Amino acid sequence: MKLVVAAIISFLSLTSFAQQTSKNLVPFVKPIIGTQRMGHVYPGATAPFGMVQLSPDTDTIPYAVKGKYNPDVYKYCAGYQYDDKSIVGFSHTHFSGTGHSDLGDFLIMPTTGTLQLNPGTADNTKKGFRSAFSHDNETAQAGYYKVKLDDYNITAELTASTRVGMHQYTFPKTDKAHLILDLMAGIYNYDEKNVWTYVRVVNDTLITGYKQTNGWARTRTVYFAMSFSKPFKNYGQKSFDDKQVYRGFWRKFNQEDNFPEIAGKKIRMFFDFKTEENEKIKIKFALSPVSQKNAIQNLVTEIPHWDFEKVKKQTQEAWNKELNKIQIEAAPDDKINFYTAMYHAFITPTVYQDSNGDYKGLDQDIHRANGFTNYTTFSLWDTYRTLHPLFNLVQTQRNADMVQSMVEHYNESSLHMLPIWSHYANDNWCMSGYHSVSVIADAIIKGTYKGDALKALEACVTTARKRNYEGIGEYIDKGFIPAENSGISVSNTLEYAYDDWAIAQLAKKLNQQAIYTEFLQRSENWKNNYNKASGFMEPKLANGEFKPNFDAYSTHGQGFIEGNSWNYSFFVPHNPTALVEIMGGKKQFAKKLDTLFNMHLSDAFFAETEDITRDGIIGGYVHGNEPAHHVAYLYNWADQPWKTQEKVRQILKMQYKPTPDGLGGNDDCGQMSAWYLFSAMGFYPVAPASEEYAIGSPLVNSAIINLENGKTFTIETQNQSDKNVYVKRIVLNNKPLKRYFITHDEIMNGGKIVFVMSDKK
Amino acid sequence: MKLVVAAIISFLSLTSFAQQTSKNLVPFVKPIIGTQRMGHVYPGATAPFGMVQLSPDTDTIPYAVKGKYNPDVYKYCAGYQYDDKSIVGFSHTHFSGTGHSDLGDFLIMPTTGTLQLNPGTADNTKKGFRSAFSHDNETAQAGYYKVKLDDYNITAELTASTRVGMHQYTFPKTDKAHLILDLMAGIYNYDEKNVWTYVRVVNDTLITGYKQTNGWARTRTVYFAMSFSKPFKNYGQKSFDDKQVYRGFWRKFNQEDNFPEIAGKKIRMFFDFKTEENEKIKIKFALSPVSQKNAIQNLVTEIPHWDFEKVKKQTQEAWNKELNKIQIEAAPDDKINFYTAMYHAFITPTVYQDSNGDYKGLDQDIHRANGFTNYTTFSLWDTYRTLHPLFNLVQTQRNADMVQSMVEHYNESSLHMLPIWSHYANDNWCMSGYHSVSVIADAIIKGTYKGDALKALEACVTTARKRNYEGIGEYIDKGFIPAENSGISVSNTLEYAYDDWAIAQLAKKLNQQAIYTEFLQRSENWKNNYNKASGFMEPKLANGEFKPNFDAYSTHGQGFIEGNSWNYSFFVPHNPTALVEIMGGKKQFAKKLDTLFNMHLSDAFFAETEDITRDGIIGGYVHGNEPAHHVAYLYNWADQPWKTQEKVRQILKMQYKPTPDGLGGNDDCGQMSAWYLFSAMGFYPVAPASEEYAIGSPLVNSAIINLENGKTFTIETQNQSDKNVYVKRIVLNNKPLKRYFITHDEIMNGGKIVFVMSDKK
Repeated sequence: MKLVVAAIISFLSLTSFAQQTSKNLVPFVKPIIGTQRMGHVYPGATAPFGMVQLSPDTDTIPYAVKGKYNPDVYKYCAGYQYDDKSIVGFSHTHFSGTGHSDLGDFLIMPTTGTLQLNPGTADNTKKGFRSAFSHDNETAQAGYYKVKLDDYNITAELTASTRVGMHQYTFPKTDKAHLILDLMAGIYNYDEKNVWTYVRVVNDTLITGYKQTNGWARTRTVYFAMSFSKPFKNYGQKSFDDKQVYRGFWRKFNQEDNFPEIAGKKIRMFFDFKTEENEKIKIKFALSPVSQKNAIQNLVTEIPHWDFEKVKKQTQEAWNKELNKIQIEAAPDDKINFYTAMYHAFITPTVYQDSNGDYKGLDQDIHRANGFTNYTTFSLWDTYRTLHPLFNLVQTQRNADMVQSMVEHYNESSLHMLPIWSHYANDNWCMSGYHSVSVIADAIIKGTYKGDALKALEACVTTARKRNYEGIGEYIDKGFIPAENSGISVSNTLEYAYDDWAIAQLAKKLNQQAIYTEFLQRSENWKNNYNKASGFMEPKLANGEFKPNFDAYSTHGQGFIEGNSWNYSFFVPHNPTALVEIMGGKKQFAKKLDTLFNMHLSDAFFAETEDITRDGIIGGYVHGNEPAHHVAYLYNWADQPWKTQEKVRQILKMQYKPTPDGLGGNDDCGQMSAWYLFSAMGFYPVAPASEEYAIGSPLVNSAIINLENGKTFTIETQNQSDKNVYVKRIVLNNKPLKRYFITHDEIMNGGKIVFVMSDKK
Repeated sequence: MKLVVAAIISFLSLTSFAQQTSKNLVPFVKPIIGTQRMGHVYPGATAPFGMVQLSPDTDTIPYAVKGKYNPDVYKYCAGYQYDDKSIVGFSHTHFSGTGHSDLGDFLIMPTTGTLQLNPGTADNTKKGFRSAFSHDNETAQAGYYKVKLDDYNITAELTASTRVGMHQYTFPKTDKAHLILDLMAGIYNYDEKNVWTYVRVVNDTLITGYKQTNGWARTRTVYFAMSFSKPFKNYGQKSFDDKQVYRGFWRKFNQEDNFPEIAGKKIRMFFDFKTEENEKIKIKFALSPVSQKNAIQNLVTEIPHWDFEKVKKQTQEAWNKELNKIQIEAAPDDKINFYTAMYHAFITPTVYQDSNGDYKGLDQDIHRANGFTNYTTFSLWDTYRTLHPLFNLVQTQRNADMVQSMVEHYNESSLHMLPIWSHYANDNWCMSGYHSVSVIADAIIKGTYKGDALKALEACVTTARKRNYEGIGEYIDKGFIPAENSGISVSNTLEYAYDDWAIAQLAKKLNQQAIYTEFLQRSENWKNNYNKASGFMEPKLANGEFKPNFDAYSTHGQGFIEGNSWNYSFFVPHNPTALVEIMGGKKQFAKKLDTLFNMHLSDAFFAETEDITRDGIIGGYVHGNEPAHHVAYLYNWADQPWKTQEKVRQILKMQYKPTPDGLGGNDDCGQMSAWYLFSAMGFYPVAPASEEYAIGSPLVNSAIINLENGKTFTIETQNQSDKNVYVKRIVLNNKPLKRYFITHDEIMNGGKIVFVMSDKK
């Protein structure tokens, strides 16, 4: 215990010293955290919010075989699983932390010896181009990844700028060095996923092309330009498409041998070299959502040279700049957790436009982003809760651009809807709610978004009135969604009610009284699914009766998505006071929360429940999924803030560890990480679009938030330790704080908050 | 006979009167000619060289079923066969006269009653959306088509501007009027042909989208914008793709019912209306090779109103302008044949760029045409012979742009080749030779092309030196292509030799002596396949010996494509003098020609020979295919010009008739028609890139060529009649012409040539 205190003192003094200067925080980022099991993050190289996510893929299990879903694929959302023993190659696009997948485009693998164009199997890497590897020979840093490929004695190094991935392969001496470009590889792959591929060999160091897929993004095309540091001797391709009927006069050429115009559905290419011992062959691989031309322009704009170290240095400097937005001191493991969480929080959404501003819109036409940067990959059911609120503190410019990207999505939508879960010029409508409205309202209310607020409100209102989407019509008419018509009727009603409250807040801000009144009223709809008899949110039938055979534990057939009623029943983030009241008052409410956190769930529960493991759970509280992310903070409304404090600290310690299996659930594009960052600093946005943050219990010793407005907001703790989880006293700008929340303005105005900690409740 | 003479006199006087004024020549165009059996032209509406070819399709026979070729499809190259009794719908792209096919995009069909989304069968039209029709209720004009759809009592009318097709459907009174948009229809269709389709319902009168196919053009995308004159009440779609595995959260919507974001491989859409008796619903359907945005721009630029008659009038005026480039007088049927031939000659190549100049290049990137109009659909093995030479007389600006389009194709080609047979940003390398070089050389030598001639020569030379294409390497090394390595070794050698001569002529014009020498030498290679022992062009083995079991009649395995040795042995258009000599002198040569024209071929021959019928043949001379198109003129080189005269007139009468079955062979993108036009005027370009035209026997009474340089060249005949096929005397600009050729300059300088005809040899 003494040691810990000593360490804290030491850290605190360092903090004082370095407060205004940029620190090297990259060493505290461990991208390998969360790569084992459920985290679904990838260990490879990316720039902050980069279009390119260049990372090793450790298997190529298909999503479905002959129409049948393959349950093994879920774990490969990010392409990499820590327990695997081989690497198939390095692909350029990856989701970070999702529970569903797509991407994995343009897989590159260096090999030697006899050319093999199939990937082989995990059991026998020798049967294909994949290679065994060991974590002993693996380095994963922010913006840099390195691994030795044991089968070929090749060292692979990866780095990336925003739109260009850079590879550096150190070969042994051989006459038979190959670079394989697998254009049919993909994460969540299946027979009909690859729609079309086109490649043009421009010369012996440059190829361009595109790949079109029908996956989670239904109509998706990614263009590329691939540049080699050394001319290839020879190249070729093989088509693995056995369905093509008509081949025409293309047969006039041997298309497998140095033929520069390549097209088809399933293609793998190879490029042959002769190498000296330790010769490095480098690749620059640029992406574009728009055209080959733009990919080339991205390539020459971002990396006009062949200096791998320089790209790595620039990208790590870019990361450092981002990481320095919050300078903390904390125990070593906590500091690693904190900066790794920051790293994961600053990956998604990703830039989705070329260096010239061109991007492909939802309408599949090419647009130019005027005055903003266009972003994609909005996992909004996850990220509206905590990630976008985090951006309103430390990524205000980007968040404003993200809001603009959503408004443009709306403008381009022939459905006239804001994004639900969108990526690469498509929406896949995954999950519940229309949470763009929360992100937009929060960004306008907090002063982040400077664009046309009325237009943004119109987009929110139009989306929320989309009667034929997911029961919205019935929700409007009846105040709830009949269970007969929707498997997730309760989730939808609860999420909509919160979203409607966010719209109401925005309308209020913009003095749109009629909209305010309409949506404030809608925001009360959560009450319609609350069964006073049981004390739970329950599915209701069209006739107004609650559905029989209700089970508050089950996640199947009870009207919820990624959650059970035990977790979802607390989902009234916009009005906990009313929830406390309806649930029988503060005492009763706190007791119910206690039950949630302390219950013991059976093994049968886990066997039946998708997407939840014991790793991601405390009692019956599921941290691995999002619906309950605000729940630990609700004790504040029951006048038992010490329980919020102890639960938050418990979650911070149990759910986040500096190890490969350190994430108990999918990071969900940074949402889990954002929860960590806020909670570790001692406060949390329970209801985005509110300007209030609920007070929890800071984990850090200190934190300086370097705001984009030039001010700093400092968090200091006194008597901090793993046992001193209780907040005895709070001093804001030298005045005692007598409430359990702070406001956005209080942070943005700069200043200092001091938490005096204790081991007593 | 008297009647004919009287008619001639009457026409002659008219000619004199109207010489300088524009005539209404549209009534002489009968697009129905050639729609029965082999002509493979379509009867629908198109503007001159228009991007849109809007025409009825009378069947939907697939190219292949389960990987097996369906031999019935050959006749549907243009989508329409005169003998068919039903129309499936009206699609927007068609080849004109080809012997292979593709296209047939965006088929629209108006129906009434119960909605049917399958096309039904020819046997029972009631089983699908197709309709019976009768030629009695059909009108086909240049730029206009009309038909009554008997099953629905709907009158369909079509017209088109360059990039926009306009439909006008007159409905009966019904609550159940439908417009079907079949996005999976196509000519030469098969399972994997539709790669992807995307549609966006912008509002209740506008939809946009694109269709991507893998057909004769391997990687082809066509974008569209479709505008309705009346809002549809209701719309929907049905996917016929049974292979799609992953459908994701798109299932949240009923995509078949008013869902505005549509994508997939096999889609048919419908739009519902309520109509009054005789209510007209109109559609404007714009194409673009580049984007939906550009399609909309094309639509509003070209047809900013809903006046169908105005579009029809403008397009027919555009046709009239083109037709007036040659004003002839002739017997009624001949005049119809002539102007129908002119119409067919001015359809292909087609404009392939948007109204703003954007087009998709062979490299699949978007380019902007600077200072020229980009064209596509180059059926060069056919059209280099006569069609492009025709353009050098009466379409000089367009032909210059076509040459520029070819040069840009070369610039965009990663193979570094000029087009062989190209369409829609793809080459399919159909047929033999590299005849772009002939078109380019002819256009530069004749002063048509004003661009960078040296760059154009470089493109020719680079293409002709492409050693790994179609035996060119062996051709260069050995002077012939070994029969072991190519099924069309003799055709290739003969066509290459001519092409090389054309390159030599261009090099000479540009003072490139080394290239001239190299290619003049290569142009002698035809001699290497000539077997003096047999007197035929014969395939040669690698060891230099002629291949045994030679058959001069057969088209199979003898080294020829679309021809036998009897026809191809005369293929030395650039040096008939040497051919006459090698074949034993003028007398012997003429005798051999006589044999060709007078032989009787057995029924067994026709049964075995693809692409040739008795319709397309005179003796053993095959006019329906191209290799012998110059052969009738070769008698001039044997000092028997009267035989040229009588054969030419015989071909003009026998091979071209003003009836649906009036074309004896595929029109081949206007090549057959161009042969008619030249020959009917009395002269013919035996060797493009030569400035000389061989004299034949004019069929017309008179012709005025209105040259683009403002001058006119007049052809007059005296004593013209069907029997007076022999040219007794020729007077050029009042001086007797003592030779059997005229030169390009003599025409371009303007003036008058008078042919005095006789019935005596």
